[in-house]
Amino acid sequence: METKPTEISSSKMFGGFNKRFKHFSPTLGCSMTFHIFFPPSPSPSHKFPVLYWLSGLTCTDENFIIKSGAQRAASADGVALVAPDTSPRGLNVEGEADSWDFGVGAGFYLNATQEKWKNWCMYDYVVKELPKLLSENFSQLDTSKASISGHSMGGHGALTIYLKNLNKYKSVSAFAPIANPINCPWGQKAFTNYLGSNKAEWEEYDATSLISKYKNVSATILIDQGEDDNFVQEQLLPHKFEEACRSANVPLLLRLQPGYDHSYFFISTFIDDHIRHHAQALNL
Amino acid sequence: METKPTEISSSKMFGGFNKRFKHFSPTLGCSMTFHIFFPPSPSPSHKFPVLYWLSGLTCTDENFIIKSGAQRAASADGVALVAPDTSPRGLNVEGEADSWDFGVGAGFYLNATQEKWKNWCMYDYVVKELPKLLSENFSQLDTSKASISGHSMGGHGALTIYLKNLNKYKSVSAFAPIANPINCPWGQKAFTNYLGSNKAEWEEYDATSLISKYKNVSATILIDQGEDDNFVQEQLLPHKFEEACRSANVPLLLRLQPGYDHSYFFISTFIDDHIRHHAQALNL
Repeated sequence: METKPTEISSSKMFGGFNKRFKHFSPTLGCSMTFHIFFPPSPSPSHKFPVLYWLSGLTCTDENFIIKSGAQRAASADGVALVAPDTSPRGLNVEGEADSWDFGVGAGFYLNATQEKWKNWCMYDYVVKELPKLLSENFSQLDTSKASISGHSMGGHGALTIYLKNLNKYKSVSAFAPIANPINCPWGQKAFTNYLGSNKAEWEEYDATSLISKYKNVSATILIDQGEDDNFVQEQLLPHKFEEACRSANVPLLLRLQPGYDHSYFFISTFIDDHIRHHAQALNL
Repeated sequence: METKPTEISSSKMFGGFNKRFKHFSPTLGCSMTFHIFFPPSPSPSHKFPVLYWLSGLTCTDENFIIKSGAQRAASADGVALVAPDTSPRGLNVEGEADSWDFGVGAGFYLNATQEKWKNWCMYDYVVKELPKLLSENFSQLDTSKASISGHSMGGHGALTIYLKNLNKYKSVSAFAPIANPINCPWGQKAFTNYLGSNKAEWEEYDATSLISKYKNVSATILIDQGEDDNFVQEQLLPHKFEEACRSANVPLLLRLQPGYDHSYFFISTFIDDHIRHHAQALNL
């Protein structure tokens, strides 16, 4: 069980390289894949800041790399992209693949407390294991300069991880995040199963609840939300998050994009603005 | 069997729309899907010129739309993108799905002459049926202004279709085209099965052979070829095509791109140059 990452593919794009790696994760107890996009390097000793991208339900580490086109701006701005998978894989926990919105492909970036789902610790994987692994194995990366973004379930992950680790990430953004999971069916299903019935624990993974706790957010949070996104009213609840930000005086730029849906077509249209948002926070 | 196209999906991207359609094709004798990207329209009566994109082996009408990021430049330049599928589907011809480089997903943009594969008439579908269908059903398109491009097998399709129809297309470009199929395993397998043993017929679908026949090509042909493409030596043979262009005095811009492979990561890196190439020929 090799914890050191092994390169399993490499493709040049916009002068840099998409590279996929495999490693055994002690946090999750299984083998995991992740992608890094390395921009073209100005010098052999150059170190790139890192933008973590957390994907949504059913995704792997591949969707963002294949569909977003983020590499164009990341290459131009000199930001490395790191895309982890969305849950443990291959553990064969009973029922793990019974539904698309829970279990495999649906880790919700939390640490499960229920025995059955004890391997579902994507929070620790993203916040602790992965940055350490990157810093130990990739001298081209400066993991002390990091920002975080994501889509849908991954937008929820980005917002909550950022709010709980303001010292670790320079900036956050999200596309169509599940902004208030304790009040939507996707979140309630996942939190009930992963965390049990203690609602106080749920709030620890709810961006809208966390905002009032972490009022010392000074960097503007950028969120894009498609107005024709079928999930906006029932599952995403961006306006709940907006209200919470207003009450807590947290600077939020919530852009409602007319006609856009929940897909990567929406993401690729606005990803450059997000890369720029993070590049500025990372002083590029 | 509805020959009129029915819209089956629509997603906004870069201000325009990716729309997928389904229709019954009399040419192919089966139901087919295709994608159109409509740029944002400057006025209700505006008509966009059309860039046809022909995909490679195993692809459908979706790959280019999902992976290339071509919509950004197409939106900026005002070019509609039309992406057909790569073969007839659902006919259940014996052996049609036995290999990934022949049959389903591998139409090679020719008209088969062998009885068993009589439905494999992607040449007529792309050159005749589809433009007529577009002009009759989409008032936003000006199909009299058209250009053509493609990847791998689709690059072969774009080059051969262009050379045989210089009056129908203003310009051509290709990514890693199968430039001399009669001299490579992919082409020989496909042509033997679809066309039989008459080599004179093979040459009618071979870009390198056709060049000497159609010397009155005045617009520069643009080709990008990755130097780390695993297929270049055995299957693609760009230098055979280059020699033929030189002999025939046909203007060719063959760009060898160091480090790039055969994937859509390569295509998305250089697609803007191709869109620009066609936009200029279309007088935009």
